[in-house]
Order: sequence, then structure tokens, then C-alpha cells
Amino acid sequence: MPIKTGNQYIERIDRQNINIWYKGTRIEGPLSKHPAFQGLIQTQAEMYNMQCDERYLAQMTYPSPDTGELVGLSFLPPKSVEDLERRRKMIELWSNRHHGFLGRSPDYMNTAIMSLFTAADILEDLHPKYAENLRRYYAYCRDYDITLSHAFIQPQASKISGQIDATEDSIAAKVVEIIDEGMIVTGAFMMATQGATCDEMLVFPTPSPSLVDDDNPFAFAFAVPNDLPGMTFFCRESYAATSTYDHPLSSRYEEMDTLVIFDRVLIPHDRIFYYGDEIYCSRLFGESHFHTHIAHQIITRYIAKTEFFLGVLESLAEEQNAELEPFTILPISRILTFLETFQALRLASEIGASHDKFGFLVPDKGPLLASTIHFSEFYPKMVEMVQNLSSSGLIMITSESDFSSSAGSYLHQYLKGTVSDAWYRNALFRLAWELGAGVFGGRQTQFERLFFGNSETVAWRMYNSYDNHKYFRQIIHEFISPEDPLPNSTTDVASK
Amino acid sequence: MPIKTGNQYIERIDRQNINIWYKGTRIEGPLSKHPAFQGLIQTQAEMYNMQCDERYLAQMTYPSPDTGELVGLSFLPPKSVEDLERRRKMIELWSNRHHGFLGRSPDYMNTAIMSLFTAADILEDLHPKYAENLRRYYAYCRDYDITLSHAFIQPQASKISGQIDATEDSIAAKVVEIIDEGMIVTGAFMMATQGATCDEMLVFPTPSPSLVDDDNPFAFAFAVPNDLPGMTFFCRESYAATSTYDHPLSSRYEEMDTLVIFDRVLIPHDRIFYYGDEIYCSRLFGESHFHTHIAHQIITRYIAKTEFFLGVLESLAEEQNAELEPFTILPISRILTFLETFQALRLASEIGASHDKFGFLVPDKGPLLASTIHFSEFYPKMVEMVQNLSSSGLIMITSESDFSSSAGSYLHQYLKGTVSDAWYRNALFRLAWELGAGVFGGRQTQFERLFFGNSETVAWRMYNSYDNHKYFRQIIHEFISPEDPLPNSTTDVASK
Amino acid sequence: MPIKTGNQYIERIDRQNINIWYKGTRIEGPLSKHPAFQGLIQTQAEMYNMQCDERYLAQMTYPSPDTGELVGLSFLPPKSVEDLERRRKMIELWSNRHHGFLGRSPDYMNTAIMSLFTAADILEDLHPKYAENLRRYYAYCRDYDITLSHAFIQPQASKISGQIDATEDSIAAKVVEIIDEGMIVTGAFMMATQGATCDEMLVFPTPSPSLVDDDNPFAFAFAVPNDLPGMTFFCRESYAATSTYDHPLSSRYEEMDTLVIFDRVLIPHDRIFYYGDEIYCSRLFGESHFHTHIAHQIITRYIAKTEFFLGVLESLAEEQNAELEPFTILPISRILTFLETFQALRLASEIGASHDKFGFLVPDKGPLLASTIHFSEFYPKMVEMVQNLSSSGLIMITSESDFSSSAGSYLHQYLKGTVSDAWYRNALFRLAWELGAGVFGGRQTQFERLFFGNSETVAWRMYNSYDNHKYFRQIIHEFISPEDPLPNSTTDVASK
Amino acid sequence: MPIKTGNQYIERIDRQNINIWYKGTRIEGPLSKHPAFQGLIQTQAEMYNMQCDERYLAQMTYPSPDTGELVGLSFLPPKSVEDLERRRKMIELWSNRHHGFLGRSPDYMNTAIMSLFTAADILEDLHPKYAENLRRYYAYCRDYDITLSHAFIQPQASKISGQIDATEDSIAAKVVEIIDEGMIVTGAFMMATQGATCDEMLVFPTPSPSLVDDDNPFAFAFAVPNDLPGMTFFCRESYAATSTYDHPLSSRYEEMDTLVIFDRVLIPHDRIFYYGDEIYCSRLFGESHFHTHIAHQIITRYIAKTEFFLGVLESLAEEQNAELEPFTILPISRILTFLETFQALRLASEIGASHDKFGFLVPDKGPLLASTIHFSEFYPKMVEMVQNLSSSGLIMITSESDFSSSAGSYLHQYLKGTVSDAWYRNALFRLAWELGAGVFGGRQTQFERLFFGNSETVAWRMYNSYDNHKYFRQIIHEFISPEDPLPNSTTDVASK
Repeated sequence: MPIKTGNQYIERIDRQNINIWYKGTRIEGPLSKHPAFQGLIQTQAEMYNMQCDERYLAQMTYPSPDTGELVGLSFLPPKSVEDLERRRKMIELWSNRHHGFLGRSPDYMNTAIMSLFTAADILEDLHPKYAENLRRYYAYCRDYDITLSHAFIQPQASKISGQIDATEDSIAAKVVEIIDEGMIVTGAFMMATQGATCDEMLVFPTPSPSLVDDDNPFAFAFAVPNDLPGMTFFCRESYAATSTYDHPLSSRYEEMDTLVIFDRVLIPHDRIFYYGDEIYCSRLFGESHFHTHIAHQIITRYIAKTEFFLGVLESLAEEQNAELEPFTILPISRILTFLETFQALRLASEIGASHDKFGFLVPDKGPLLASTIHFSEFYPKMVEMVQNLSSSGLIMITSESDFSSSAGSYLHQYLKGTVSDAWYRNALFRLAWELGAGVFGGRQTQFERLFFGNSETVAWRMYNSYDNHKYFRQIIHEFISPEDPLPNSTTDVASK
Repeated sequence: MPIKTGNQYIERIDRQNINIWYKGTRIEGPLSKHPAFQGLIQTQAEMYNMQCDERYLAQMTYPSPDTGELVGLSFLPPKSVEDLERRRKMIELWSNRHHGFLGRSPDYMNTAIMSLFTAADILEDLHPKYAENLRRYYAYCRDYDITLSHAFIQPQASKISGQIDATEDSIAAKVVEIIDEGMIVTGAFMMATQGATCDEMLVFPTPSPSLVDDDNPFAFAFAVPNDLPGMTFFCRESYAATSTYDHPLSSRYEEMDTLVIFDRVLIPHDRIFYYGDEIYCSRLFGESHFHTHIAHQIITRYIAKTEFFLGVLESLAEEQNAELEPFTILPISRILTFLETFQALRLASEIGASHDKFGFLVPDKGPLLASTIHFSEFYPKMVEMVQNLSSSGLIMITSESDFSSSAGSYLHQYLKGTVSDAWYRNALFRLAWELGAGVFGGRQTQFERLFFGNSETVAWRMYNSYDNHKYFRQIIHEFISPEDPLPNSTTDVASK
Repeated sequence: MPIKTGNQYIERIDRQNINIWYKGTRIEGPLSKHPAFQGLIQTQAEMYNMQCDERYLAQMTYPSPDTGELVGLSFLPPKSVEDLERRRKMIELWSNRHHGFLGRSPDYMNTAIMSLFTAADILEDLHPKYAENLRRYYAYCRDYDITLSHAFIQPQASKISGQIDATEDSIAAKVVEIIDEGMIVTGAFMMATQGATCDEMLVFPTPSPSLVDDDNPFAFAFAVPNDLPGMTFFCRESYAATSTYDHPLSSRYEEMDTLVIFDRVLIPHDRIFYYGDEIYCSRLFGESHFHTHIAHQIITRYIAKTEFFLGVLESLAEEQNAELEPFTILPISRILTFLETFQALRLASEIGASHDKFGFLVPDKGPLLASTIHFSEFYPKMVEMVQNLSSSGLIMITSESDFSSSAGSYLHQYLKGTVSDAWYRNALFRLAWELGAGVFGGRQTQFERLFFGNSETVAWRMYNSYDNHKYFRQIIHEFISPEDPLPNSTTDVASK
Repeated sequence: MPIKTGNQYIERIDRQNINIWYKGTRIEGPLSKHPAFQGLIQTQAEMYNMQCDERYLAQMTYPSPDTGELVGLSFLPPKSVEDLERRRKMIELWSNRHHGFLGRSPDYMNTAIMSLFTAADILEDLHPKYAENLRRYYAYCRDYDITLSHAFIQPQASKISGQIDATEDSIAAKVVEIIDEGMIVTGAFMMATQGATCDEMLVFPTPSPSLVDDDNPFAFAFAVPNDLPGMTFFCRESYAATSTYDHPLSSRYEEMDTLVIFDRVLIPHDRIFYYGDEIYCSRLFGESHFHTHIAHQIITRYIAKTEFFLGVLESLAEEQNAELEPFTILPISRILTFLETFQALRLASEIGASHDKFGFLVPDKGPLLASTIHFSEFYPKMVEMVQNLSSSGLIMITSESDFSSSAGSYLHQYLKGTVSDAWYRNALFRLAWELGAGVFGGRQTQFERLFFGNSETVAWRMYNSYDNHKYFRQIIHEFISPEDPLPNSTTDVASK
């Protein structure tokens, strides 16, 4: 069973018996018909259809090494520069489809599980079966085109409890029992984005400190279907609406976030990736170059989103007869500057890629980290540009149905733009509103700003990615106390 | 008929036969029962009740000079420092009630009409009846506690049409005919905030350039009830919700914005404040110190809102056990800095008040202009502080009904805060969400950022408020080419 | 011996036998003739002359309560609002004379010693003679118009040594011996600004932690003449020049910073303000409201400096025919905004002043803290405005002597401004250069930015100045869980 | 005569009979001995020596196509990617030698004249001899290793005069007469950086508007030796000092700026590149890709300078025991982010290079424009980082000679750093001072911030570099009104 179609994607989601709550009520009936999910599911179905479309098939798939059937190219573990390029082009096709608004576009998690797979060897140390589980699970996802979500952040109360309570009292996520059929897990996880519109969930909490010597019950990772007994999902309020005119973004791209509860959920043995030793959490993420691989997927999403904002700004300027005003040129030029920057950083990450110890090609980390820092700061600024260029137009906008009402002729008369009719101009401002003042846009801003952590966290990550701090101090030392005034003759010694 | 109660306010609103459209349908039935309006109407009714409450009566009212009955203190034209203080305390009571979220708190328009009233004399030049109309209308508003809205910005298409089309073809708002009963007006106005939840509307467009010699049809001002024949209101999408737990702000403070169409509306003669001569628009606003008087109302609203954000930040910090973290201290100290600043600027505007040529006391303009520039920049920063301090907590929040569902015990267990239970902590984050990512907050940011115009407009206003630019150049001239090195011996010569 | 004249000031400075080193050489001969000091000494002499000038005498002096002779008004401990106003006007006269460039204008240290004097009572607890010493020293400074400097920051090596070395090994400043004639002190102090151009120095280090139970040798404060045996001063490089055309600021206002070494300096008993108990350091500063009193002096200096920058910007704009350009209006309006802000904060600090437990009137702390935070951020922005408005004119400027050379006619021809001749225009850009790119301006920026500590320090100070953090959380608590929806009826409850 | 040595460079400079004025006096004697020039000349001599050093010879030279002798590689017109790489490595060698502080490192003007040469063909239209002159002049510079400066900005008075005065009265630079020997030019030029320490000067003013039909006297370009009759240079005040300890940067890198006057200077016919037709100014610069070629030289200078600041920050952090403090990690990570960014943009400019119509390889413009916008904003921020991390250490620093004085032992004792002795620590802070508060650093900041124009100018340049504004609006148009929902299948369509 290779790449799936949109219909297959929908069928699987609808077939699940997921225990999911929305505003105090358990959702019954197919998710694909539920207003909070239908738009996103439809968008995602169209994306799955793309990879089955003959126009894209070659660019978006490759033959499974196990089955020979065509599977999604974002599952491909890169071993050559060509692999990286193929991955990039595939990611770009989907990103241009969703314009960067889907943080959980399937290629994101496909890349994530691919990344963990590349480092499966390290699990051999703990137990060969864990390595085997991870490899098999990856192949399963790839060959069945499994749509994944992941969960790793626990609620604050869980974290505090994990630090101060005795192991048995702690409400931090933990393994409460090992039985013949598997391990039993209890705990809560924040922010499983698209938790409900995926097939399975990958769970890998940061282990709490444990007082016990071994078999740390807080240290584990696994993947399971979303509808195991004991699993409960809570949704936040949906930001979706049904009119693509009135809510052009949320009607298509609203990815529900969920809080997931595990209440004595049985995890089968073959779905456990490690258990009991907390160092495997950081080893697995570090040695699989998890952040680097996903950042290479994300930077293409950044580029698509930046281009979308550029289009919005250029459209707002044109529609308000302000294309050549300084207050228009300045923000647009700034977006162009960052568009060049993200494209250059992506290029540099590919050109500078190097093979890891397992033989996989890892993009250069530095440019990708730089892109995450830039985007987390620049995205809110693009939103502000939309706000400034829309002014009161961001607020006083009418609805699709107003135009077709018996009073609609007033709108056609008075709401014209410089080059467009009232209907289009109003649609453009509705789009600006969703980006710049609506709730969908509010979540996007928060998501982009904090996806890789707050400013201290990302600064530390960048600082630690360099191991040549002494090199730069040495430049100064030789400048102040020169012994040999001649510089090194090799290019770019600083960057590695 | 003096100050009105909340019930009287509601009755009048509901009694109107307003032609108002929401999402393609004309609203039938009482507005106070309509989901888009009921929360705001309820809040405003409670505010009107305050002024009838014996605990506040003395602080919020004064006897009408015409009737002797108690009327709202925000109608009081200040003639002394004590008047300014009384006005400020009254405004503070309402601001603390709505925490600064109501841009159209009744004291705003009461202050606006009071301000125009103080300059009614200038209309004598054009025609004594205009001056008389304005004075009578002010007294009517004051003595009947009329709830007002205003409209002056026209849609972009109207503005362009006013510049390029012949007068008869222009869709800019204009007087199309003068008849015995009054003048007939056609045109459209953006952004009549609370247009539907008021009794009457004050209309004073910026006149388009006119090619005709006199009787400029684009130059006029008037006030009318909201339900005259020919008036049509269009609403934007409502941001209101009914649960005060889930939407603590929008359920109380959502002020609907409306687009108002005048289609051959007959304006009775006694409601016309001027007509035909475009210079009266700028004269009336300038010589009534319109901006200064309303800015003195607004600065108290700023202070209430700043305090509210301070409380939110302090609560988020406490609930996340981060009260003494640098990333908490820095934003909170910054809010305290601006809280001191706004309080000082308000004080300076009162201490520095001076009498105008009509004998009314006008607060000092400079400090108030400074406050509007500071707040338009600082408000979005406070929102960003909420975003940064809430992190993913701004997104993954559950609903009131989830807590009472059969699955709610999970929430009580896992969503606790540092000092509060899960229910309160979740409520706090819902509040942070409405401020920092929700649609209500999005409009608030746009409103505060651009209320007095974009950054160029407000810079010009401040620049032009000074007439001593030479004085400052003279400091430099004397420094470079000193004749008398001794400074002036009087205090503060620069500030006037 | 009352207020001194400029000549008396110079004579005393020149009479000192100070051990001061400049670029490896001990300075011999009168400081008032030394290029590094003469400009500043001349400026300061003119300032002292002002207080003896009959035009200013009444505004700048008051009769000594001890001698009845006229003494400097900045020594006056304020007990009434009128006292605060008199102090402010006196400070303003000097500030307008030096345009805010003198951080050690005599009124600064006069205010400092006055402030410590007001809290002398607390030293009674430690020993009555300490209280008596402080009171007498204050009276001595006031009645003899002593020009003071102060020193409290130690070099980093001293601080580290104070933390890790045994008391006897530590190089942190300490009392090494007590003998009949007084206490013997050894240590080093950074940044005694104007250390050499003052009569005496006030020394009050932050005590290092001590392991001994009592008689902490690191805890002490005293004041001594600058030329005691064992004292050595090191100067930084001078930024002064002699041409007031070429270096209009540094030729007048360059305040030398010095590193002061105490090598077994004998401090007479009557000059010791406390010794041996480290808590008196923080008590003396806290209970004398040291920061608040000096901040009230400083805010007037801020205002004078802000006006000076305003004049520079306005002049640059005029001279380049750019007065009405948006890139000119924006920065000028911003300076006006902060000028209003500083004036309002000063006013608020005076109106909100309250009596301390010793009966002295202390300005309100909050507005003054706010001013220090604003100015430390805004000053560098004003410098940037000068840079942006001067462009390459900041760099390519000629010298006074070029104009009078045989080639000077070229300059007169080609360097004209819009309204001025080449000589004046070039002088204006030289001034802009000293502010925006010269070394004098560089020190000013660093001084203003960091005078009250880095951004974390000032944030903490502001945070801790409030004791009503609960009040603001309570606003939110009542909003979320209202019991009584009515707000408090008193004004401004939040600000205290 | 191929690449020159340092001695040859000095000899030529000293041999010139340049008419140059410093502080009102004409400089007599060799410039290489003059304090204002000697440090820079020595540095530049060492740089010329590098290209003759066998360690660098192969990396820094190539055989002249005319003479076969080795000439400087920065003269090489790139035709292949390898050429670009060779150029980059050569530029890097010199940039690492001067750490990016020389804006007029010889490779800058070598690149400039090379760039103009590549478009010499366009001058054929005007007159074949102009094309020939330019080609020959380029070959002359290359084969004789001519050190060039350039001048194109005129004083403000000249510009205004060129706009308002009649041609004959205008003081704007112009051709005043054509005679048999050549053309006679009169006018003034600002900011010939290193005007005096070069062999020749390239002059190409922006032509003033001319009222005459042809033979526009304001339109011309030429190159001449610096010591022709009628040429006069005025220097600004020198920022240089002689001690490399006390002034580590200015003692080596101070590039004097000069104002150059042409008073009836005879320009020989063979040195004229065009005359009389103003369109050749913009054509020559546009079609030679002048900005792009020099920006490719400059970006490597940016990288060297960024690395230098990184070293300073890391050293300051280490010396103050603050390596792992958040206030250290944040700025250092930010520099790393921009270091990655500049490296990526340089790479992208090379990878994306394309051949122009003359067959030369031009780096991709977009990434280079992005680098200039980033650096003009980021450089001042790096300076601010140095200021913040140095605090008062930026001000209170002693001199080299203080250490060797009889009082120097105090400094050795008290001024130690965390890892270094007092001498080194003081040297580090002197370096920080020159960057962050000294006059050399002040000019650097102004130079970097405004080199490519103010923020509006650079925004326009970026905006105009794109010709696909419609493309981005089309993204939005298809999103709002989709006809074919499938995205384009090619990579990176947006970037061209």
C-alpha cells in the first residue's frame, strides 16, 4: 500500500474511533463532516491527491526500498545532494499549495520520523529490539503513507509534579506498569497539533528527573494509533469557518490543536522505541539531527509564506493606489530582503551538507538555525506591515452574503478599489484581516514566534552549535598581540 | 429628562427602527437580544446605572444649567481646574468599569459634542442659526443623555471620486438638494463604531475639494437619529460570544463597527451645524480643541487599560511561577514605566490647562499628544508581552463546558497553575488569548495603533502643535556664536 | 565663607597637591592650564560666577542656617513644595548653561551630600559620632561651597578578590588598620568623574561579603581632600581640544574620568561616616532617598539636553532645506514627545512629593525612575537621529584654520548652507559630529545609557519601587471572578 | 610593471606633488611620514607586500592578458564561476588582513574600474574614443597596479546651484572649456576617501539638469593623477594616533576623507570616458553592474568585520567572567546568525551568477542587495553590543605609558581580567572603546550605515531590482479567485 489519495486519507480519519471532545461534548460522526475539521481535511486530501497526480508523481514520490511501490518523497533519507534537492522540490510543491500555513503539512512529520530512523543504530546499545522497532515503524509509516502527529510538551502542572513529587505521586507522564502485552502509560501532553486529523501519534516526552537508579519510568518514546483505549483528546476552540470568501485562510488551513490524555494506555512492545534510560531522549534527537532535518523542511515553508505576505502587501498597495509611496516601498523591500535571505540560507544548508556517522547527508545546521531565528522575529513584523498598510480597512469589512443581499448594491458602489471591483477588494481585506487581526492569524503569529522556543532558547541553540568560540577570540588575540600578522590562507575557516 | 438608567438606555435602542444588516440579513427584533450586540448593551446599561447609583451620583453628575436636573458630568464644559478634575474622576470611574476596552464609552462622544459646543460662536459668522443649532443640540444631548456615535471617514472610492469626478458624478458624500424641510444628503461613511447601539449619529466629513465657488455641497455637518429613512447600516462580522468564561472580553466589550449609507436622507434644518463653506470644518475642530478635549478623556482610558495589562502580566507570571524571572521583570517594569508616564502626562495636561478665547479651560495639548503617540506604539508592545509570557498556553486552552463534561476531571488534574486551580488558570489564559491572539484583541490593537492616524500623521500633528521651532534653533545659534552666554532666567520657556 | 566665585574655584583646584597621572607622566603645574582640564575648569568657573551674579543670586542661593551667609541652593534640603521648585529652578539655570552635558555639574554632588545628610539620624544607631560627622561634613561642604566628586565602583579584579580571597589577601577596598589618628584604607575605585577638578571625594563602596562576625573591614564610607598622602589618580585619555569652533562640546564640557588608588591612606576620625557594619551602606542610601533626590536633579539636566538635541535637529533640517520632509518631521516630533514626557514626569515628581520620616520632602520616586529608563533608551536614539540627518556631512568637515588659510576661499564658496554661510554651516556639522561620531559624544552615549545600571538593573529598581503588585492581580481576579463589579470610587488608587 | 610591493606603493605616494591642506596648512614632505597618514600607508604597504609574498602569490595574482606579467586578481573580470571564487578568496585574504575596516582596500577600486571596463562597449555609441579611453585606462591601472580613489558626491551648495542657477553661474562641477589639450573642469567633490593616499582619482559626478540641448557641461567622467595643477585637497581632522596599544584601530586603519576642489583643471583627452550626454552616467553604472560587482567585494569585507566583532564580544565576555550569561549569549548568537546570513548571501550571489550581454559573469544582485540592507542596520547593533558588554570599562581605560610609569604597578594589581593580565585586559577595552565610543568607530558606524544611501534609497534599489511584482500579486489573485488550484511545479520561480 503506497502513497494514498485524498479519499483514502479521509476514509482512514473517519474510520478511527477517536475519543475526542469539543466544547464539552464528545464528537460523534465523521470528522471530515465536522465544521472544525472539514476544511483542513479537504485541503490535506487535495495535497495527498497531488502526489498521485501524474503531473507531480515523479517529483513527489520514489520507490520504496522494501516494496518497490511509490512512496512519499519526504520519507526519503537523504544520502546525496540530489536527494536533498528532490526533497526540497517536493516540500516546495506542498508548501506552495498551502502557502506555508500548515505547520503539520504531512512532509513535516514524514521528515521527523525519517530523521529518527537514521539514528536507530544508537538504540542498539539499550536493546536491539528498540532499534528494530523504530526501523520497522518508519518503514510502516512510509509504505502505508501514515499521517502522523507528535506530542512531547507536558502541562506545567505535570512538569512541576515531576520535579517535586515522589515518582508514584507524580502526574508527569510515566510508565506505570509493564505487562506481557506492553507498557502502560499515564500522563498528559499539550499541543498535539492536528492530533485528531492524523492516523497515529509519536510520543517522546522530555524525561523528568528520576530518583530511581534505573528503569526511569519517565523516560520513554513510542508511537500508537489515535484511538487506543484510554486516550482522550480535548480540542481548543475552533478557528475555522466555512466561507472561503469570508475566512479564506481558516476555512482551508485551520489545524486543530489538542490536549491528549493517556489514562493507563497499553503501548504494545513493538511500538516502544526506548524505555527506562533518560539519556536516549537527548541522544536520539541529537544524533538523528532531528532539528536540522525538520528545519530543512520548515525553511521552504517559510519561503512560501514570505512570498504570500509579499503578494498581500503588493496587492494592498495596488488596491489603495499606494504602490510607489515610501510607506509601501519600505515594507515590501524588507520582505524582499528576507526572501533573498531565506533562499540563500536554504541554499547554503544544502551546499554545506555533510554526511553523518550513519552515512546520511545532513544539511548544514548553521544556516537553518539562522533561518529559524530570523523568521521567528520577522513573521510578526510582516503581520505588522499588513496591519499598517490596511489601516481601518482591516476592521470595517463586510461579508460575502452582504453583497448578494437586497442592500448589496451600495457595497458594489462604495467599496471599489483602485483596480478591482468591490467584491475582490473586500475579499483582499478579509484576507488581510485574517492575517493581521483575526484569530487564525493570531495563532499563526504565536506559532511562528515560539515554535523553536523563546528567544533565550534559540540563542542558546545557536551558541552551542558553534564549537569554535576560541577561534574568534584568537583573531582578537593576534590583533592585540600579533606574532604572525599574516592571516590564514584558506577560505571560510570561521564557518566550520 | 436627566441621566438615564441602563433600562432606559436599552429601551431606546430597542425602540429604534434601524435599518441594519448583518451577514446579508436585515436584523429584526430588539438589538439587546441579538448575540452581536447584547453583551455590549448589557455592559453599557450597567455603566449608565452607575451614574444613577447613589454611590457614584455625586461624582458622575451635575445639575443642568437649563433644567436643574442631574446630567452626566462628561457633558460639563470645563471652566476651572476643578471642572477638569471632576471630569477626570468621572471618566476614571467608567474607564475602570470597562478597563479601557470601550473606545466609545459614552463619555467619549459626550466630550466630543461638549467640545464642539464650546466653539459654537464661530458659526455665527456663517449663519447665526448654525450656532444656535449646535448649542441646542448639545443641550438636547446633555439633558436627554443621548448616546451618540460619529462618522467622518469615507470609503476610499468616495475619496477618489471626490477628487477626480465632476461634482454631480462624485460618489463622495454631499448635499444633493436643499428643500424646504432641510437638506438631502447622499454618501457613505466607514467605521461608525457602535453606530447601532447609539441613539443618534454626528456626521462631519472632511470636505472634498470643490470646483464650485460657493455652496460647496461636500462641506456640511449634522446630527440625526439612526433610523431616518434612507439610512442603511452594514455590520462587520461580530467578534462577540456569550460565555464570559470563554470570551471574557468580547462577551462584554465588543463594539460593533458599521458602514453607514445615506441615500437621499433628509436632514432637518435644525440639525445642520454648517453647510456650504469648507473652512468651517477645520475651524470648528481646531477652535473647539476637539482633539485636546477627547485626548483628555482618552488618556484616562489608556491608564485603565495599561493597569489591566499590568494585572494580566503579573497574573501570568505568578501562575507560571515566574514572578522573579528577568523575562518577567523586564516587561512588567516597562509597563510600570509607561503607567507613570501616562499618569504624569495627564497631570501635566491639567496643571498646564489654559483658557481659550471663549472662556473654557483647555487641557495642555502637548502632554496629551505625547500620550497618544506613546500609546499607539506601546499598546502593541503590551500585546506582545502577553504573547511572550503565555507561550503555547495562549493556544492550547479548553472551554468552560469541557470542565463540566464527563471528561472534565482530567482537566482539573492536569491544568493546575502555581497558585490557582485549573478552572481559574484556564480562564486567565483565555483572557490572555483574547488579548494576544483572538479577534477581539486584534481589533483592539489596530484601533489603538491607528486611532489618531498613522505615524506620519501623528508626527505632523505634534510638529505643528509647536510654534517655537525658532527658539530651539536659537539655542544652537547662541551656542555656536554666543553673544550673551547667560541663559534665560525663567523656568520652562521652551515648553510654551 | 559662602558661595565661591569662579576664581576661587580655580584657585583651590590649582592649589591642591594632587598626585595625578596622565599618559604615564605625573601632572605638574596648575590643572587650570592643562589642556585636558582647562576647558572644563573654565566652564565650571563661569557657572560658579553665575551664582554670584546679581541677576541670578536670588534664584541660586539661600542663607546658611549656621552662618547666615548665602550658600548654594542645591544644598537646600527640601521641606516644602516651594523648596523643590526653588531647587528645580536653580538646577535649570546651571543645566541651561551646560546644556545637560555635565554629569558632575556641582549641583549633582551638592544634592548627593544633602540627601545623605537628611538621613544622618540612622547612623546614631551605630555610633553617634558617625551621625555627627556626616552632619558636620554636609555643613562644611555647604558653607565652604566644596566641589565634590564620588567613588564607589571598584575594578572587577577587586570585586572578584573580595568574593574569593581571604580578607587579608583581598584586594577589595578595605580598612587595613585602625590607629589613633583614624582608619587606614587601601583599595581602588573606578570612574571618579571630575575626580581631579574637585576639592574632595566622597567614598562609599558596596561592601564585599565578609566572613568575620563584626567590624567588617569592607564596610565604610568617608570623605577626604583629593591630595592626601597615598592617593593616586590615573586619567583616561583626554577628549578635550582647545578650539571651540572645531570641538564646540569637548572644549567646554570634557569631564575627565579617573581611577583612584588608595594606598594606606589615613582617614581622619571626623571624616568617617560609618565603619564595620555592612547594612549601613544600603540603609544610608535607601533611607536618604539618594536615588530619588539625585534623579530630581538629573531630570532637569535631561530636559536641557533634549532641548539641545532638538535645536541641533531643527538646525540641521533648516540648513539642508529639509524642514518639512517626513524624515525630518518624524525625529523632531519624537523629540518633542519625549520633551513633553520629561517635563510631565518632573512635574509629577514634584506634585506627588511626600515627607519622609525625618520631615524632608522627597519627590515622587516613580516618575523619576520612569524618566531614567526613558532617557537611557532615548538618548542613543537622539544620537542616531543626528547621524541620520547629517549623513556624510558628519564626516567630511573642515577645520577653523582651513577657512583662514590661503585656500579658504574655496570653502566659503562651496560649503554654504541653505540659510547660513559656510563658516556657520561647517560649525553646525562639527557640533553634530561631536554628538554623533566624535569621542566626546561616544562617552556621553555610554554615560547616559548606563548611568543607572544596565537594563536588568533599572528594571529591577522599577519593579521593586512598587509594593502593590497584588493590587493589579486583584483587578484581573475580580474581572474573572467578580464579586462586586463596581470599581473603587477613589482616584488613582493604583499609583500608590 | 606588474603588481607593486609595499615600498613601491609608498614611493609613488611620496613622490606625488599633491596640493593637500590639513588644518589650515599645506602638507609638505612625504605623506608616509605624516602622522595623519603613516599608519594607513604602512598597513596598505603590508597588504601590497602580501600579493608579492610567495605564500599568497598564486591566490592573489593572475597574468596580465596584455603583458603576461602577474597583476592583481581583483582586476580580473569574471567570466566563470571559478573566476568569481578566485576573486572572493583574494578579497578574503586582504579583508582578513584589515578585518573589514578599510572601505578603500585596493580591491574595492580595482573592482570598480574592472566593472566599468566590462561595459566600455556602450560608450562606442557616443564616441569610439571614449570606449577606447576607458579600456586603456583599465589596462593601465591593472598593469601598473594603480591605487585609485573616486569622487562623485558634490557639496549641497553645488547641487542646489546646479538646479537653480543658469549654467554659467552654477558652481556645480562642470566642463568650463574645451581646448586642444583636453577639457577644463571646475567644481568640488565631497568625500574622496583615501584621496591623498592613492595615485589617481576617478571622477564621475551625477549630472545636474541642463537647460542646453546637447553638450551638457555637467555630464562627464574622467580619471587623473592627484597632483594636476588646479587640484586642491582639504582633509578632515585626522582620527589617527601612533600607539597601536592605545589606538589599535586608528593607528592602522584610519582612511583620511578629503574634499577635492577642481579649479580649471585640464583633463587630457585620453582620460575622458564620456562627455556631454547625461544618459551615459546611469547607463555606464547600470550596464557595468557597478553596484553588484562592488557589493561582491564588500560582502567579504562585511564577513571579516562581523567575525572581528564576534571575537571582541567573545573576548569581553570571557574577560569579565560572563561567557554563559544570557546577556552575553543573546548578542553573540545574534552575530552568529548574521555571520551565517552573510556567508549564505555571498554563496547565493555566486551560485546564482549569470552572464551579462558582454559575456561577463555577474553575481546575483538580489542576495548582495539584501546583504547591504542587513549590514547597514546590523553594524550599529554590533557597536551597541560592544557598548553594552563593556559598560563603564569602555570609558575608564588607561594608556600604554601608564603601565610603564613608576605608578604602573597599581594598574597591574587592580586591572586584571578573568583570564588575562591587566595589560591585555586594558588593551581589549581600548579596542572596545575605539569601536564603541571613539571617533574612529564613530566614522565607521556612519560609513557602514549610509554607504549605499539612506533607508529610503536602499529600499527603492531593492524594490526596483525586482521585475516580478505582478507575480506575487498573482499568487494572491489565484488564492482569492482560484482557477487552477495547482501550484507551479518548478523550483524557485519567485526568485527571478
